[in-house]
Amino acid sequence: MLEFKRSFSVDLTEDAQKNMDETMSSLKNEMDSDEIGYYKLPQTSQEIIKKIENLDLPNYSQIVIMGIGGSNLGIKAIEQILRPYGKDIKEILYLENSDPISISLTLKKIKKDEALFFVISKSGGTIETTSAFKSVISYCDLKLEGDDAKRIFAITDENSALSEFAKHYDITEFNIPLNVGGRFSVLSAVGVAPLMMAGFDVKSLLKGAGDFIESFFDGKEAHLIEKAYYASQNVQKLPINVLFSYADRLENFTKWFVQLWAESLGKIDKNANHVGLTPVGLIGAVDQHSFLQLIIEGTRDKSVTFIKIEDFGSDLSVPDITLFGIEKTNFINNKKFNLLINAQCDATMQSLIDTKVSTDIITLDFVSPENIGSLIAYFELLTSATGVMMHINTYNQPGVELGKQILYKNLQG
Amino acid sequence: MLEFKRSFSVDLTEDAQKNMDETMSSLKNEMDSDEIGYYKLPQTSQEIIKKIENLDLPNYSQIVIMGIGGSNLGIKAIEQILRPYGKDIKEILYLENSDPISISLTLKKIKKDEALFFVISKSGGTIETTSAFKSVISYCDLKLEGDDAKRIFAITDENSALSEFAKHYDITEFNIPLNVGGRFSVLSAVGVAPLMMAGFDVKSLLKGAGDFIESFFDGKEAHLIEKAYYASQNVQKLPINVLFSYADRLENFTKWFVQLWAESLGKIDKNANHVGLTPVGLIGAVDQHSFLQLIIEGTRDKSVTFIKIEDFGSDLSVPDITLFGIEKTNFINNKKFNLLINAQCDATMQSLIDTKVSTDIITLDFVSPENIGSLIAYFELLTSATGVMMHINTYNQPGVELGKQILYKNLQG
Repeated sequence: MLEFKRSFSVDLTEDAQKNMDETMSSLKNEMDSDEIGYYKLPQTSQEIIKKIENLDLPNYSQIVIMGIGGSNLGIKAIEQILRPYGKDIKEILYLENSDPISISLTLKKIKKDEALFFVISKSGGTIETTSAFKSVISYCDLKLEGDDAKRIFAITDENSALSEFAKHYDITEFNIPLNVGGRFSVLSAVGVAPLMMAGFDVKSLLKGAGDFIESFFDGKEAHLIEKAYYASQNVQKLPINVLFSYADRLENFTKWFVQLWAESLGKIDKNANHVGLTPVGLIGAVDQHSFLQLIIEGTRDKSVTFIKIEDFGSDLSVPDITLFGIEKTNFINNKKFNLLINAQCDATMQSLIDTKVSTDIITLDFVSPENIGSLIAYFELLTSATGVMMHINTYNQPGVELGKQILYKNLQG
Repeated sequence: MLEFKRSFSVDLTEDAQKNMDETMSSLKNEMDSDEIGYYKLPQTSQEIIKKIENLDLPNYSQIVIMGIGGSNLGIKAIEQILRPYGKDIKEILYLENSDPISISLTLKKIKKDEALFFVISKSGGTIETTSAFKSVISYCDLKLEGDDAKRIFAITDENSALSEFAKHYDITEFNIPLNVGGRFSVLSAVGVAPLMMAGFDVKSLLKGAGDFIESFFDGKEAHLIEKAYYASQNVQKLPINVLFSYADRLENFTKWFVQLWAESLGKIDKNANHVGLTPVGLIGAVDQHSFLQLIIEGTRDKSVTFIKIEDFGSDLSVPDITLFGIEKTNFINNKKFNLLINAQCDATMQSLIDTKVSTDIITLDFVSPENIGSLIAYFELLTSATGVMMHINTYNQPGVELGKQILYKNLQG
């Protein structure tokens, strides 16, 4: 279960209510018309699960993922937070960047005869991904036929270049619905296929997301649309949105959020203005020692959302040891670390409230696939709602094309 | 060697020149008067090196570091980027956060009889660090005497609580100069002692930093003071400073930079205004797929600094393989990944220049301790110079005290 609280107040004027109602209708229309497909992934991805259940898989102990951006951030996020709570989860390796040192180090960890290989790219033309794939083929001496081919999976758009590739070599293919963009695709085959094969409970993940989306469209998550309204009304005053997660293993989740928020909301709006909200991902308590000073005393241009995990499922306590000289921290002796990190979260939030910084907090009662599914759905819906209120196209990313064109020109020319 | 280029122009009016000259004088005065000590660390830390050379160390294969914020970010930064280029570097484990899952997982990796333990805290009262230390003592059944005590090292301020502890148990102690703040302390004993014992070439690291600082005060790094001037003049227009590093292993370096920039420059200024510059750390080419869209099309509130490594020291190339369907990326076949990632950096920078975003680039000819030392000194000096021009105290962090007080009250009450 997720609990939502906030310190800022939203002035629910008639205009505000109208804006929020219209936004809800707009999202519902996106969903019902199938213009945007992520809303229905908890249902449509059931097919992926069935397909995998019926696959005749070779033995494996390792998953190798070749993908970047929307094609791996969500997988990394879910793996990192759920792994300590899973049983018999396979190792996952990621090849993403074009960094030669990373590629060399990761290639060495691959156990060819124990690995399943996932090539993930919506278009099939992602240069980092195809280059990594060729490196894996060469390093592992992977054949594109027979037993080797059974270890390779392509996750891509229908009829894409990568889909053509898969069909040609008789490689198992999973499709991403055409109405689901990369950064909204984690609950499509992109996340479901590799995570399920790694041993994660993707059914519960989808259930958590589906339940939250249903609850939202049933009008039971008013806090979400109010927060989107607050964010969109404060684009000028609070252009930076901090996500402060109090758990080391939410670091990749904050990176997933950063892509979702930055790429979706950084746009030229319908009046040709450059608009955007800048996400910053922080980890507590670590970043109390790095970034908190700036939030408290720096320019008041930030809102802060905390994520807290009520029960980490750990009884680890601070040992009851007294050390000469440093006795003054003894007050924490015998207390659980679980209590300490959450007390730090509460105290930091209170210090921000006391200094009039806009804050809100999402509390997970514990870490579970359901809760993480709900959390994913929450941020996706929040992004969609905020995008409508900012009068932008939330789902494209035209700004990155120029760099690609320059790259192709420079390298091909 | 570091090379600096920029796309933005700085209007060198008489006033600007006066401001820059006064800032240089102010920094020189901080250094000469010993008010601020980091400038002289390349010299003063030689003592630490001598002390370590004369230590009678037990056998070890592992370094365990207990510290958070300024007490570990710099170590992590240097370790991550230099490790692939070092020989016989010992494993380093970090205990930092109060996250119970992290602590449990890290404790399990400790090999008691092969480890050296570093407790790092300026004050000695850092709650995460003392709690982690007690957990290590308990888990490893570490005695504070005899052979066990020879494996423990305290790095702290003279006469601090942790210093009292070290003296009481006859534990080897390294002091941080009192005029060196946590986030400027990486080249003090904080970084030098554990990194040297791990096997890194700290002499060259210090030499690189020292040479750059000397060059700066000799007036040979005008670009630095001009960039500080530009940043301080554009606090309102460009409040967000992105550091976009094109190398996976610079990720911790960007985190080190984020602390340095955020904690130093997020302040209440001499006129009681909240001022600050918000740092964002990105990794290329990965974050072209997550954040670039926001920089290009979003609100024009960002400057972007690139870091590029000319020669990664890797010949790894994209294999000359043609895959049916995805032939269109064949143009990169046979080319080095080193070339690809740098071409991506250049193309991204060019796309930002074309869209009138302020950019500059720091190019390292290759990765070496000297170059990383220079890079550290560059960002420290840039921070100090910008702080002077923003009329703030660059070196304190009063804003984080409120949260600590609330925490102590809640937990002790």
